Amino acid sequence: MSILENIHSSNDIKNLKDEELEPLCEELRAFLIEKVSQTGGHLASNLGAVELTVALHRVYNTAKDRLVFDVGHQCYTHKIITGRRERFATLRQYGGISGFPKPYESVDDAFIAGHASNSVSVALGMAKARTLLHEDYDVVAFIGDGALTGGLSYEGLVSAAASGEPMVILLNDNNMSIDPNVGGTASLLQKLRVKPGYRHFKQGYREMFYHMPSLYSFNHRAKEWVKGKLLPENMFSAMGYEYLGPVDGHDVHLMERVLRWARDMRKPVIVHAVTIKGKGCSYAEEHPDRYHGVGPFDPASGEIYGGGESFSEVFGKTLCALADKDERITAVTAAMASGTGLDRFALRFPKRFCDVGIAEGHAAAMISGMAKQGLVPVFAVYSSFLQRAYDMLIHDVSLQKLHVVFGVDRAGLVGSDGETHHGIYDVNFLRSVPGMTVLCPASFAELRAMLEEALYRVEGPVAIRYPRGGEGEYRDCSTEDEQIIREGKDLTIVCYGAMINDALEAVRRLDELGVSAEVIKLNKITYAKFPRVFASLEKTGRLLMPEEVCAIGCVGRHLLAQASEAGIRLRAARFLNLGDNIVPHGTRALLLRDFGVDADAMLRAAREICGA
Amino acid sequence: MSILENIHSSNDIKNLKDEELEPLCEELRAFLIEKVSQTGGHLASNLGAVELTVALHRVYNTAKDRLVFDVGHQCYTHKIITGRRERFATLRQYGGISGFPKPYESVDDAFIAGHASNSVSVALGMAKARTLLHEDYDVVAFIGDGALTGGLSYEGLVSAAASGEPMVILLNDNNMSIDPNVGGTASLLQKLRVKPGYRHFKQGYREMFYHMPSLYSFNHRAKEWVKGKLLPENMFSAMGYEYLGPVDGHDVHLMERVLRWARDMRKPVIVHAVTIKGKGCSYAEEHPDRYHGVGPFDPASGEIYGGGESFSEVFGKTLCALADKDERITAVTAAMASGTGLDRFALRFPKRFCDVGIAEGHAAAMISGMAKQGLVPVFAVYSSFLQRAYDMLIHDVSLQKLHVVFGVDRAGLVGSDGETHHGIYDVNFLRSVPGMTVLCPASFAELRAMLEEALYRVEGPVAIRYPRGGEGEYRDCSTEDEQIIREGKDLTIVCYGAMINDALEAVRRLDELGVSAEVIKLNKITYAKFPRVFASLEKTGRLLMPEEVCAIGCVGRHLLAQASEAGIRLRAARFLNLGDNIVPHGTRALLLRDFGVDADAMLRAAREICGA
Repeated sequence: MSILENIHSSNDIKNLKDEELEPLCEELRAFLIEKVSQTGGHLASNLGAVELTVALHRVYNTAKDRLVFDVGHQCYTHKIITGRRERFATLRQYGGISGFPKPYESVDDAFIAGHASNSVSVALGMAKARTLLHEDYDVVAFIGDGALTGGLSYEGLVSAAASGEPMVILLNDNNMSIDPNVGGTASLLQKLRVKPGYRHFKQGYREMFYHMPSLYSFNHRAKEWVKGKLLPENMFSAMGYEYLGPVDGHDVHLMERVLRWARDMRKPVIVHAVTIKGKGCSYAEEHPDRYHGVGPFDPASGEIYGGGESFSEVFGKTLCALADKDERITAVTAAMASGTGLDRFALRFPKRFCDVGIAEGHAAAMISGMAKQGLVPVFAVYSSFLQRAYDMLIHDVSLQKLHVVFGVDRAGLVGSDGETHHGIYDVNFLRSVPGMTVLCPASFAELRAMLEEALYRVEGPVAIRYPRGGEGEYRDCSTEDEQIIREGKDLTIVCYGAMINDALEAVRRLDELGVSAEVIKLNKITYAKFPRVFASLEKTGRLLMPEEVCAIGCVGRHLLAQASEAGIRLRAARFLNLGDNIVPHGTRALLLRDFGVDADAMLRAAREICGA
Repeated sequence: MSILENIHSSNDIKNLKDEELEPLCEELRAFLIEKVSQTGGHLASNLGAVELTVALHRVYNTAKDRLVFDVGHQCYTHKIITGRRERFATLRQYGGISGFPKPYESVDDAFIAGHASNSVSVALGMAKARTLLHEDYDVVAFIGDGALTGGLSYEGLVSAAASGEPMVILLNDNNMSIDPNVGGTASLLQKLRVKPGYRHFKQGYREMFYHMPSLYSFNHRAKEWVKGKLLPENMFSAMGYEYLGPVDGHDVHLMERVLRWARDMRKPVIVHAVTIKGKGCSYAEEHPDRYHGVGPFDPASGEIYGGGESFSEVFGKTLCALADKDERITAVTAAMASGTGLDRFALRFPKRFCDVGIAEGHAAAMISGMAKQGLVPVFAVYSSFLQRAYDMLIHDVSLQKLHVVFGVDRAGLVGSDGETHHGIYDVNFLRSVPGMTVLCPASFAELRAMLEEALYRVEGPVAIRYPRGGEGEYRDCSTEDEQIIREGKDLTIVCYGAMINDALEAVRRLDELGVSAEVIKLNKITYAKFPRVFASLEKTGRLLMPEEVCAIGCVGRHLLAQASEAGIRLRAARFLNLGDNIVPHGTRALLLRDFGVDADAMLRAAREICGA
């Protein structure tokens, strides 16, 4: 690690000799594999982006220039270079450095990232600000081909081309988002990659070629590449971009040179780099999806350390079993076949499976069309990413009361991915969709039962929300709207989903204190009248409701208002939730502790309102 | 009207002789101008789509085949043809036919429309359902070039191309959405339209040309068109489409022939028709934006009947005045420069103005980048369309607490555009964004004051929501969080925004009954502690809160829960809102009456809870 140890900023990269770059990249790869094997994180995408990132830092000063990552999980090398190497053992840990760019962490992180396809839009806004305020810095969007499947990136590309703003879009094309790319975008890029034959350079290139001394030093390979692969006419060119590519994204010298040209063109430029996901690490190259977001593993063999069955897997298996008996069932994912457990379905029912790429809005509109014509579509999607389809939930799904099923995975706190990924808004936005039914299984058995209920016993749109990972202490199965878990007389604790596990712990400790808590678990949080909760509140006079959501979206306040409208007068009501806060990364348990929504917090609140 | 009178369905169009088509189109145009001049509605886009629609009905049976309109305001000719001609005097009126496709109105309306860019996604879902369920019908998406600027349409196009599903996408290219098109999409289409020179047909066309007898009957003009303009290589082709065009969209015979080929290709096909918005009506051709969505007008001269100043105009003027003094202010619209009153800003500050096309998500992400780098961006957008940017509000704006300003126009019921356009969800979704401040002006003076407040005295993201049209009885100006409009002792009426006008009427009538109502107007509905409301509730013990929102999003329940948490015990609370209903078209007054949110309803509720 002789070179890497002396790198503390963008500037240190610029001071390296050319011949030090390749050894540096090797050191970076070794460092990434070592560290990520311990903490878990995004491996394959970072291994693929090492040379691109080093080249970016040769050309740009990220403390001043604005480097906008798309999705952002490929930012590790950038973080290592910009002063965060020594903190890498804390990656994605509570209180440690984030796995995504965070302006609060470093001035070198220009903007937040996490959701795909926004980088061109954000970079364009920055470039416009630079120009309008007469400032002097460069702007780069660093986007993968997967993110290019999102319509937002198309909107950004269209708008940036029209603007004429000097900015560079570095397209990292590994033909692989989280799952292999699908659809027409991939087909477009494929055409660019394989397009044969020699093409003439445009005037701009020619002038550079003849007038800039540095270009005379081209080695033979670079010249061949320029002649053979620069494609002056394609979709990007038609939009109005200067297009440079495809470039070998693992040739750090070539990348540096091309980025420098791109920067100096003073107009919107696309640099199309081709890379290999997992580059330089045999198991990650072979199974880039498995080493996309990965837990701790053996760095030598790649063996990933255990992990039990997850709600996602149960979802996928159950859907397969139901689909065996009903050919109307179709499954849709937005680039998350493995993550949502639908990989199994994809293999068993390829014709009835559809991966639309990172296009949640399209998925929601498409399944509306499917449902209108007689299919029973199921869209499995992470809670946080479903935010992209909020309008379609109302406009395409709800207004026609279509029977579509949403498998809302990663509902609640997701842990180490942090604030951009927590599923803490869906309770509010799903409930605001007219006619939407929201079911909240707390165990695998309930997920199985509720998926069947959603498909066959609910009318209109229905969402089943379940947490990341596996089940907890609660393993029972109920599909009653309101499930009385245990009776009590001093206090009513109302909860739903995985929070039941924390509530059960609190209740045991309350028992020891002589406080008798009644526990009611809501299995459906929409449009119910909550008669059991109301009866319980009339008995106990006290309500405690812990929720893994932000305050404004909490069910508790609605429930209290309904109780109040129904004439029930409470002695005390207490809502534990995430408030109006932005919740960072860390384990669910630590975050719940910090935000006061865990068993300890329930205990404190219960004692307070019961005077115990 | 000799031909039109005998048209009652798709089939009647098919039975016409070729030579009757052009006279029919003339009759349709005269009918459209006559009717829309009386009811108001979308004129220019419908005049441009007459021949396309007639040709579609020559080729398809819309009772069985699925014709999916995009946006849908161009569906008038379709409605006239499919049995709704005699009801056209009721267009967009309460209880009358809608100005948009509605499956509940006719089996010929395949799907709802209103928000742009979803048609390809929906049509693809339908085509997949058709194939998977082994049924036999055709699917067509009918989309304008304006809607093509939306990323959702790109996601749909990419996905449909990859699917290989037989379906036709009819692109109606008039180079004009509501405002003239902007950006790279327009530039791409422009290249297609003007691309010179002769191109060889692909094998598919050749075979058709030689083997299908009907093609031998080409007249000279059609042959020249086919030779000169069929473009086998462009972005659509690269995606995997068969591309037919550009076709003269006002040549009904040619359109019929091309649509028939497209249908018979049994794969994804794009038919690119070029039309003139407002075609055949001099004033609409000359000012297509003015006759896009228009009130009643003189059919001979085109003179549009009066209408006072609107909140949109006040917004635009105020922003201009502020921008004169502050060069950091930039204004952004998503294809609604005139509708949002930003046309004035666009003329005065062209460099600081940006129309991104129908791309609300991109606009929100872009202004985040602007704000991060020191600009003060203002995005003026209709409430209903802002739903498209929900994820960006959280991810790009809120997580970094960026100071961006949203001018949320058309908040509340919008009237004749109906369920797809009502701004009745923003109160909920805006309040759910951490750190968002929501201001609710009720008069022009308050809009002026609050816009300045939003720009200079609020931190983080801020939304100002104001209604469609002009102001009512209330003309005062206050920017206090809670404004005591009048004191009373029996009952507290809490409201915000335009609802104050209805409340004032109710209060006068309550006075006559001897019921003394205190009225508090909320000017800010987020994060406030509502101390004045609480004090009032302690005094009166009764709460009545009328809101122009759906139930789940109402502020009232949160307020009641907060009061309850604060230990305030009420004798009665009543919330008047739109419930979980889907609200159709009609005037705001009639809709509020029907849903029980007007002055009459307030009077009834107040009497009930006061026992008066």
